[in-house]
Amino acid sequence: MADPSALVLPFILCGGSGTRLWPVSRESMPKQFARLVDVSESTFQTTARRVGDTDVFAQPAVIAAAESRFIVAEQLAQAGIAADIILEPEGRDSAAAVAVAALHAARFNPETVVLIMAADHVIGDVAAFASAVRAAAVGARAGYTMTLGIEPTHPATDYGYIHRGGAIAEAEGALAVARFVEKPDAEGAAALIAEGALWNSGYFLFRADLMLAELEAHAPEVLASARAALDNATTDLDFVRLDAAAFAKAPKISIDYAVMERTTRAGVLPVSFPWSDVGTWDAVWQVLPQDTYGNAVRGRVEMLDTTNSLVHSEGEGLTTVVGLDNVVVVATPDAVLVTSKAQSGRVKELVGVLRARAHPEADAHRRMYRPWGWYQRVDIGERFQVKRIMVTPGGRLSLQKHYHRAEHWVVVRGTAEVTLNDDLVLVHENEAVYLPIGSMHRLTNPGKIPLELIEVQVGSYTGEDDIIRVEDIYGRSPG
Amino acid sequence: MADPSALVLPFILCGGSGTRLWPVSRESMPKQFARLVDVSESTFQTTARRVGDTDVFAQPAVIAAAESRFIVAEQLAQAGIAADIILEPEGRDSAAAVAVAALHAARFNPETVVLIMAADHVIGDVAAFASAVRAAAVGARAGYTMTLGIEPTHPATDYGYIHRGGAIAEAEGALAVARFVEKPDAEGAAALIAEGALWNSGYFLFRADLMLAELEAHAPEVLASARAALDNATTDLDFVRLDAAAFAKAPKISIDYAVMERTTRAGVLPVSFPWSDVGTWDAVWQVLPQDTYGNAVRGRVEMLDTTNSLVHSEGEGLTTVVGLDNVVVVATPDAVLVTSKAQSGRVKELVGVLRARAHPEADAHRRMYRPWGWYQRVDIGERFQVKRIMVTPGGRLSLQKHYHRAEHWVVVRGTAEVTLNDDLVLVHENEAVYLPIGSMHRLTNPGKIPLELIEVQVGSYTGEDDIIRVEDIYGRSPG
Repeated sequence: MADPSALVLPFILCGGSGTRLWPVSRESMPKQFARLVDVSESTFQTTARRVGDTDVFAQPAVIAAAESRFIVAEQLAQAGIAADIILEPEGRDSAAAVAVAALHAARFNPETVVLIMAADHVIGDVAAFASAVRAAAVGARAGYTMTLGIEPTHPATDYGYIHRGGAIAEAEGALAVARFVEKPDAEGAAALIAEGALWNSGYFLFRADLMLAELEAHAPEVLASARAALDNATTDLDFVRLDAAAFAKAPKISIDYAVMERTTRAGVLPVSFPWSDVGTWDAVWQVLPQDTYGNAVRGRVEMLDTTNSLVHSEGEGLTTVVGLDNVVVVATPDAVLVTSKAQSGRVKELVGVLRARAHPEADAHRRMYRPWGWYQRVDIGERFQVKRIMVTPGGRLSLQKHYHRAEHWVVVRGTAEVTLNDDLVLVHENEAVYLPIGSMHRLTNPGKIPLELIEVQVGSYTGEDDIIRVEDIYGRSPG
Repeated sequence: MADPSALVLPFILCGGSGTRLWPVSRESMPKQFARLVDVSESTFQTTARRVGDTDVFAQPAVIAAAESRFIVAEQLAQAGIAADIILEPEGRDSAAAVAVAALHAARFNPETVVLIMAADHVIGDVAAFASAVRAAAVGARAGYTMTLGIEPTHPATDYGYIHRGGAIAEAEGALAVARFVEKPDAEGAAALIAEGALWNSGYFLFRADLMLAELEAHAPEVLASARAALDNATTDLDFVRLDAAAFAKAPKISIDYAVMERTTRAGVLPVSFPWSDVGTWDAVWQVLPQDTYGNAVRGRVEMLDTTNSLVHSEGEGLTTVVGLDNVVVVATPDAVLVTSKAQSGRVKELVGVLRARAHPEADAHRRMYRPWGWYQRVDIGERFQVKRIMVTPGGRLSLQKHYHRAEHWVVVRGTAEVTLNDDLVLVHENEAVYLPIGSMHRLTNPGKIPLELIEVQVGSYTGEDDIIRVEDIYGRSPG
C-alpha cells in the first residue's frame, strides 16, 4: 500500500448548470451528470474513475450543489466509488469551493496535496493524466500552486491561456507561470500559440496549508466564510452540508482571480494528453469517435449523405438527417435542437430565450430526480396524467394527500409498501392500489430492487403543486 | 335547387401512402389524412370541402384503400360531409379507379360528368376552382376528356406538362391537348414554359359513358375487371367493398397512359389559381404562410437567426433551430427529420433505408387507428407497456385474450363496458378493472362521448401478436 501522505486528494467540483449543452444538459440535470461522451457513464462518473489509481490518489471528495446531492450519490453508488460529498447551499464560485477543499484536507494532514478537478472535462488518456498529476504533485509539495497547462492543438478562443516562465528546479518538467491570459479572440489565440502559451485546464494542485496561507493573504473573507461554513456544517444522511448563512457571506470570486493571478508561486506543468472542457456541441463532436464521413452519432439515428455532423438521439425516438454538412441535431424525448457546429456556441443564448418565454423544457427534464428516485410524465390529457415512478430500495416518498386528484398505482417491478390512511399494505408486481381524493398516503420501497410503478392521476387538476406534504424523511418543506 | 343532371360528380382518389412527407405521412396515416397544411383539418378533408358548392357539385364519392376505411369515415364524419365510400382491396393504379368511378356514376345517369380529384393536392382559391370545374364541365359534356392545366409559376421538374392545342369551339377557354409531356429535367422545364406548356394537375372531367367507351377502346381489361369488381361488390358497414378477386385482375396502369395519351378527344382548361401537389417538404413550405424571415412554423417552435425554413413540431415537444437557412425540421413524438429544402425530395429514399433496416417508424405511427378508435403507446419497459386507448361511441374491440400479459385498465374519460369471462361490468371515469392473464375480455364504449383509458400491461411479453381474437364485429381475422 502506498504511503497515505504521498497520495493526492482529489476534489471534484460539480457546480455549474451547463445550459450550453441544452437540451441534454439542463438545470435539473447538468451536463456533468449526463451520459454525453461515454454511453455507459456520465462525465462526472468518468472524472471520479479517473482518480481511481490508489497508488496516486486518496479517496476523492465531491463538492456539489445541494440540489444535486441525490444524483451525485446515485451516480457514485452506480460506479461503485466511495467519496465524501460536501454540499454547497448555493454556488459561491470556485474560490470558496477551493477554500472548503483546503480546509477539509488540512483536517487530516495540513501538508496533504489537493487536486481540484472540474466534473465536466474530458481527458483522453487516464494513465498520462495520473503521471502528470504525480509530476505536478512534486511541484505542489515544493510549495507551488500548480496547474496543468495543455499544449494547444488549435487556436481556441474559448479557453484561457498561460505564458510559460522559467523552470522550477524542484519539480522536473514544471515551469513558473509567467502570466495568465483571458480567453482571446481568434487573432489573439493564434499569437498566443505562436508564443508557446498553454491552455489553462483549470486543474489545480496545491498543499492544503499553503493554499490556506494564500487565501489568508489574498482572499481572507472567502477563507473566513468557508471556515465558518465547514465548522458549522451538519451531516445530513451521508452528506456534509455547509452552513448556509456562513457560506452565503463568501465573496463570489474565482480561484483564478482570488489566488492564481496574485500568488508569486504559481507553477504549470505542460502536458499534451487530449483534453476538452466540452463546452459546446461542437466540442462534443470533437471528442466523440467519428465515422469515415466525420459523423459522430449516438442513439437511434439514420442518415443519408450527411457529413461532419453530430447527431445525438436520446430515448426511444428515431432521428434522421438527409443531405446536410456540419450540423448538430440533438433529439430528446421532449425537446429537439438543430443548429450548425459553427453556431452551436449560441445554445446558451437560446436557453435564455426559452426561459424568457416560460418553456418548461428550458430547465426541467422529463425525468425529475428526487431523493427517493425519480418520476417522469409519460402521458397527459385534459383530466388525467400518467407518470412512471421509480423508488430506490429504501426510498420513501413524503406522507401526502391531494385535493384535486385520485391516483391509481400499478406496480410493474418490485414491491411497494403503501400507507393509505390508517392501513399499511404491500403491493407486488402486477398488483394495483387506488388512492381516493383526499386520502393520506405514502409510498415506500421496502425491497432490495428498484420499485417501478405506473401512476394514473385522474381529477380536475394534476399539477405538482397539489401535493400536501405532511411528513418527509428528506426534510422537504410541507405544504 | 340545381338541376341534378347539371351537377358534376366528384370522385376523390385517396390511394397512395405518401412516404415523401415522412415522418408525418406514413403508411399507417398517409399525408392526405394528416393536418399538414391546415391546422384544423387534413388535406383530404379540405379536398372534400372544396366540392361543397351544391350549385356545382353532387355529393362526392371517395375511392380509398380498404385499410384506410375507418380514417376516411372518421374524417368525413368530423367534417360533417356525406360521401359514398368505395374500397379498393388493393391499389391497381388510377385507370382502374377511374373505371370504377365511371361505372358507379353511369348507374345513376350515363351522361353524368365525373370529376376525378387527388385527395392530397392544395388549391389556394376555392371559388376559382369551382368556376374552372364549371367551365371544364362544358367541354366534358361536349365529349372531351378535360384536364385542368395550371399556368406554371416556375420551371418545376416534378410535374408533368401539357402542350396547348387549338381552341375547342364548344367550350369557352378550353383547348385541345396537343401533347402530354413527362416530368422534365430543369432545362426541359424552362423550355416547356417558354413554349407555353401547362402543368398537368391530374384533375380530370369526363362524361361517364364516354370514359367507358374510351376504356373499352384503349384498356378493355381494366374496364372488365372494374366492372366485375363493382358488380360483385359487397356492402360492409357503410362501405362499398370491391370484389378482391375481380379487382386484382385489373392491369396496373395510370389513366394517363391508358386513356389520356391515346384518346383523340383530350381537352385542357388553362387555369391560374395557386395549386400544389405538396409532394415534398419544400412544397409544404411553399404553400404555408411564411413570416418576415421566410419561415413556416407549426407547433411548439423557437428559433434564433433562422431563415427560409420549415419547422414542423407535432405533439407536446419543443423544437428549436439556431443559425440555419433553408432547412426542414420535422419533429413528431417518435421520429425527427432534418434536411435541407433542396434535398427534401430524397425523403422517399430515406424511408426506403428505414424499411430496409426494419425501423418500425418507417410505416407505423405512434397512434394506430383501428375500426373502433385508436391506441398509442405512451411508455414501455422490460416487463410492462402502457397505452392510451380511445374508443369511439359504439366502438367495440374484439373478444380476446393474452397468453403472456395481464392488463389493468383505468378509465380516464367516458364509460367502458367490459366483458370479463362470464361477467359484464360498467367501468366509469376514475375506476379501474383488472384482466388476469388468460382471461377472455372485450372492451366496448356504450356511451355518447369518446371513452379513453390507460392500459397498463404487465407480463413477460407485451407484443401486439399476443392477441388471441375470438370474435370481432369488424371482421378482422382471429388468431
